[in-house]
Amino acid sequence: MTGTGKTSQTRLRVRYAETDAMGVAHHAGYPVWFEVGRTDLMHALGLPYRDLEARGYYLMLSDLQVRYRRAARYDDLLELTTRVSEVRSRTLKFAYELHRIDPEGRELLATGETHHIATDHSYRPARLPEDVLAALA
Amino acid sequence: MTGTGKTSQTRLRVRYAETDAMGVAHHAGYPVWFEVGRTDLMHALGLPYRDLEARGYYLMLSDLQVRYRRAARYDDLLELTTRVSEVRSRTLKFAYELHRIDPEGRELLATGETHHIATDHSYRPARLPEDVLAALA
Amino acid sequence: MTGTGKTSQTRLRVRYAETDAMGVAHHAGYPVWFEVGRTDLMHALGLPYRDLEARGYYLMLSDLQVRYRRAARYDDLLELTTRVSEVRSRTLKFAYELHRIDPEGRELLATGETHHIATDHSYRPARLPEDVLAALA
Amino acid sequence: MTGTGKTSQTRLRVRYAETDAMGVAHHAGYPVWFEVGRTDLMHALGLPYRDLEARGYYLMLSDLQVRYRRAARYDDLLELTTRVSEVRSRTLKFAYELHRIDPEGRELLATGETHHIATDHSYRPARLPEDVLAALA
Repeated sequence: MTGTGKTSQTRLRVRYAETDAMGVAHHAGYPVWFEVGRTDLMHALGLPYRDLEARGYYLMLSDLQVRYRRAARYDDLLELTTRVSEVRSRTLKFAYELHRIDPEGRELLATGETHHIATDHSYRPARLPEDVLAALA
Repeated sequence: MTGTGKTSQTRLRVRYAETDAMGVAHHAGYPVWFEVGRTDLMHALGLPYRDLEARGYYLMLSDLQVRYRRAARYDDLLELTTRVSEVRSRTLKFAYELHRIDPEGRELLATGETHHIATDHSYRPARLPEDVLAALA
Repeated sequence: MTGTGKTSQTRLRVRYAETDAMGVAHHAGYPVWFEVGRTDLMHALGLPYRDLEARGYYLMLSDLQVRYRRAARYDDLLELTTRVSEVRSRTLKFAYELHRIDPEGRELLATGETHHIATDHSYRPARLPEDVLAALA
Repeated sequence: MTGTGKTSQTRLRVRYAETDAMGVAHHAGYPVWFEVGRTDLMHALGLPYRDLEARGYYLMLSDLQVRYRRAARYDDLLELTTRVSEVRSRTLKFAYELHRIDPEGRELLATGETHHIATDHSYRPARLPEDVLAALA
């Protein structure tokens, strides 16, 4: 994955409920997987998102972009790489690469990016605490 | 629909995202539709669920039962009948009948039932207010 | 909505299942709504997507972009405007504007865009039939 | 888990997208988890559901029952036990127990059951092949 920034890897298996009548994983499932990637990345950084919420913050989505290159199918084994791509005091960006893993190798299925605004629990923009910014940067 | 109790009708169209690789509506979408039916029924009773939450209550699900008879497909027009099937001071039951509507007539697709426990926002069982019980009964 | 291209309007109510623990509609629900918008637009053009599939085509997503400006909440009434923003023989683009409708007026919640590739049922790129291109253009 | 029948265990983490505005995992996510459990169980039996579909069968849901005892929350670690509870030539039943795993121990969150009808890809009831029945029994 190009670019700097802390990364983590998540293994996922395509659920039957995530497929659609085209026989492939429905496109609205990808942002759900990206969110699983963020959860894993923040755990890896010692900063579970659950704890961040308990401290009074939300990371609300402001932008989502997904590029779909190849379709995923039920029961495919996927590897999601999640990277912190930008850290500012009130906004964060994450980048994603999704591969299919099978005996023949790794195949890029999709890439994506999400932008987030830090808010308090009244949805007002808020400055992230220093320890959080340090862990992410 | 057999049985007594207040009812309402909801029209739904099967969304593409609700289908799966079998080419039919995925079974986990039915409880979502039932919930839409409850929203509509409570609106019809002058008791929007949103207002009930604002007054400090939740209606948490304790039991779900669905019987699937015929499959629904993308873009099918459905009619959901939702009925209050039991009202007690701390628990409620709703019953559901889902039909497909098409030029040839109505076809029963599924039936279901949900049981609910009234709680406060700390998830502790709570007695529903009199006006709520009266509106539902 | 700026730009040319055929449009349609869809009314939606935020489902409880579409909310998340932040108390707002989860961001992965927006692409599902956009898809409902496309279904409605293609019905309005006399070209139901269901029929297009029956003729052997899929419109697979290649790109998704969503900009979230304000949060939607359970039971909010939304109006989605869907527009054909580009028609080529093998690719299509759609643009979306999502507003909340309430007694005080309309409020813009989100905008988005999706790009699609026409394929056959083996997921191979395919040229759309002339009548389809004409209906969309 | 009471009763006979082959079982498997699945670890799941509650996804943010699976929560709702009550702050807990939405009830319609449980049948999705059960389905993940069936996928894992059939893998464990050397009989991936994907292969069964490739051989021309579907296991369509005819009945779903869930009893919710305690709520699950975002990021909770869950352990799902899936059991084949009945095998007949044209129908199958599975039973489920869902526990939360945390440092203090295991806590039962929900139980459930699903009934399935074996069909061909035209949704007509079909007799399951002998090797499948043998692997499940």
